Amino acid sequence: MAKPIAVVAIGGNAILKSNDDLSFEAQLNNAKQACKQMLAILHKRYELVIVHGNGPQVGNLLLQFEKAKDLIPVPPLDVAVASSQGLLGHMLEISMRCVLEEDRFAKEVATIMTQVVVDEKDPAYENPTKPIGPFYSKEVGEQHRKNDKWNIMEDSGRGYRRVVYSPKPQKILELNTIRHLIESGVIVIACGGGGIPVNYHTGSVIGTEGVIDKDFAASLLAYNLEAELFLILTGVEKVAIDFGKPTQRQIDVMTIKEAKKWLKEGQFPAGSMGPKIEAAIEYIEKGGKEVIITSEDNVANAIDQGFCTRIVNHEQS
Amino acid sequence: MAKPIAVVAIGGNAILKSNDDLSFEAQLNNAKQACKQMLAILHKRYELVIVHGNGPQVGNLLLQFEKAKDLIPVPPLDVAVASSQGLLGHMLEISMRCVLEEDRFAKEVATIMTQVVVDEKDPAYENPTKPIGPFYSKEVGEQHRKNDKWNIMEDSGRGYRRVVYSPKPQKILELNTIRHLIESGVIVIACGGGGIPVNYHTGSVIGTEGVIDKDFAASLLAYNLEAELFLILTGVEKVAIDFGKPTQRQIDVMTIKEAKKWLKEGQFPAGSMGPKIEAAIEYIEKGGKEVIITSEDNVANAIDQGFCTRIVNHEQS
Repeated sequence: MAKPIAVVAIGGNAILKSNDDLSFEAQLNNAKQACKQMLAILHKRYELVIVHGNGPQVGNLLLQFEKAKDLIPVPPLDVAVASSQGLLGHMLEISMRCVLEEDRFAKEVATIMTQVVVDEKDPAYENPTKPIGPFYSKEVGEQHRKNDKWNIMEDSGRGYRRVVYSPKPQKILELNTIRHLIESGVIVIACGGGGIPVNYHTGSVIGTEGVIDKDFAASLLAYNLEAELFLILTGVEKVAIDFGKPTQRQIDVMTIKEAKKWLKEGQFPAGSMGPKIEAAIEYIEKGGKEVIITSEDNVANAIDQGFCTRIVNHEQS
Repeated sequence: MAKPIAVVAIGGNAILKSNDDLSFEAQLNNAKQACKQMLAILHKRYELVIVHGNGPQVGNLLLQFEKAKDLIPVPPLDVAVASSQGLLGHMLEISMRCVLEEDRFAKEVATIMTQVVVDEKDPAYENPTKPIGPFYSKEVGEQHRKNDKWNIMEDSGRGYRRVVYSPKPQKILELNTIRHLIESGVIVIACGGGGIPVNYHTGSVIGTEGVIDKDFAASLLAYNLEAELFLILTGVEKVAIDFGKPTQRQIDVMTIKEAKKWLKEGQFPAGSMGPKIEAAIEYIEKGGKEVIITSEDNVANAIDQGFCTRIVNHEQS
């Protein structure tokens, strides 16, 4: 019988932490720590698919591209996302190779460049919401708005950031390839940065604007692969409601009915926990068993001891 | 019976032509023209693997990274090559998808990020030889040498360029994945930019300096896949000897004995035709049947009418 599949979504900011130095040594070290945590999943005999975000990295690339724009044309957003898939896929892949070698786990790893179809009529194209790249002061943000025609928005009280359109993923073009490799026992890194946005604008596939949310892409991939386990990693060990209030409490098990209610109440901010909860609901509603939300450094605890937030269809007795 | 495999090596400068504008529209158009030519190979019922170079693109990336170095650390060369694999893999993949759709050929395409082991004791590390990125005037080249610590060299009488180390490829880490996908009928784009250079410096895999020659990487891949056909694309339809002399002549069929003799005589310049001939010899000596060298826009003629240079083990009657 085929082994069950686990899809793990990990943020680009788990690799490039905003309080860290920006060096690639630091990113590689973070990538290795993240991969180490995933051994717990492999030891439970799951086949593993890793979906990573790219917010900080694609933002940095776009900033680098802007700085050289007098010499070299700034590539469109799909090409920038593709570059970030290369950059991050490589770092995660060598990290995973090291972790497997240290564990003496003889398993192959492959990174699949992934193109994801988006709808050119997606309402997301009316309103850029996805923050990417570094935080700026108000003044520097204003300069980018004026000089580079970027959309700039205040982000979580921590500064000003570029925001881009974030259409929903509709179809993963390399799905069969990914499925095929997983079934052969390969650890697959796919849908990096939510996938490279493409559409059928001209009757054929072309690259298009946008940065797809990696949690939505991971949810779509988990659904299409009929994954048994879907983990969404974030900065906290458990999801909390009434955050910052005296009534604040951490949730161990959340039904999708509760999840929807709390989402509607505005318990989960749009820029961070909101999309994760939405992605979890979507996966469960399409037949998924459960979603685990926890922090990047708590995967082993979550898998082995259940210390995490579980999102399920119905409360079990 | 499994279908025979064709490995095609195509230069990064076939996608970003030095006389073209630098725009991504132009690169995408070139990529599509290149993919159109490859239909001739698919129509002959080969499984197809595309290996692309990245000289102009990785050079541009490094230039972009340098321009923003006060804000964001310049990534090491392996990470830059990885980014270029993403960038070019995406462009080639959407181009190939379009060409297949127009031909109504229902075939899947996948781009595999490829890490290639190099020897840290490779003599290439004593002498940077691989030109990447734009041509500079002597003055601008000198500035980069001074400010960015780049190695700068005069290239083919056309200006000054950055040169980097180019170690030989030893082992393709994703070989099984690539083989697996080809056997499943997927068109695979792999070993982009010659592959991301990695080594076992610390007992485990780490990224390392260098840009591997894509013809050598393609030769290694063709050998390891036991490919039936190995095409090396370049700027000319046929290889010439005595280039620019009254005795100049184009070669239709070259035995590896002749190839070695002419290589020794200095008939093939180190920066351009030399590595292609060397890569061809290596492939034939390890059991390959023949190598076709021709131009990017002449693949159909080469395949259908034999208009090209063929390199073979022994002259056939």
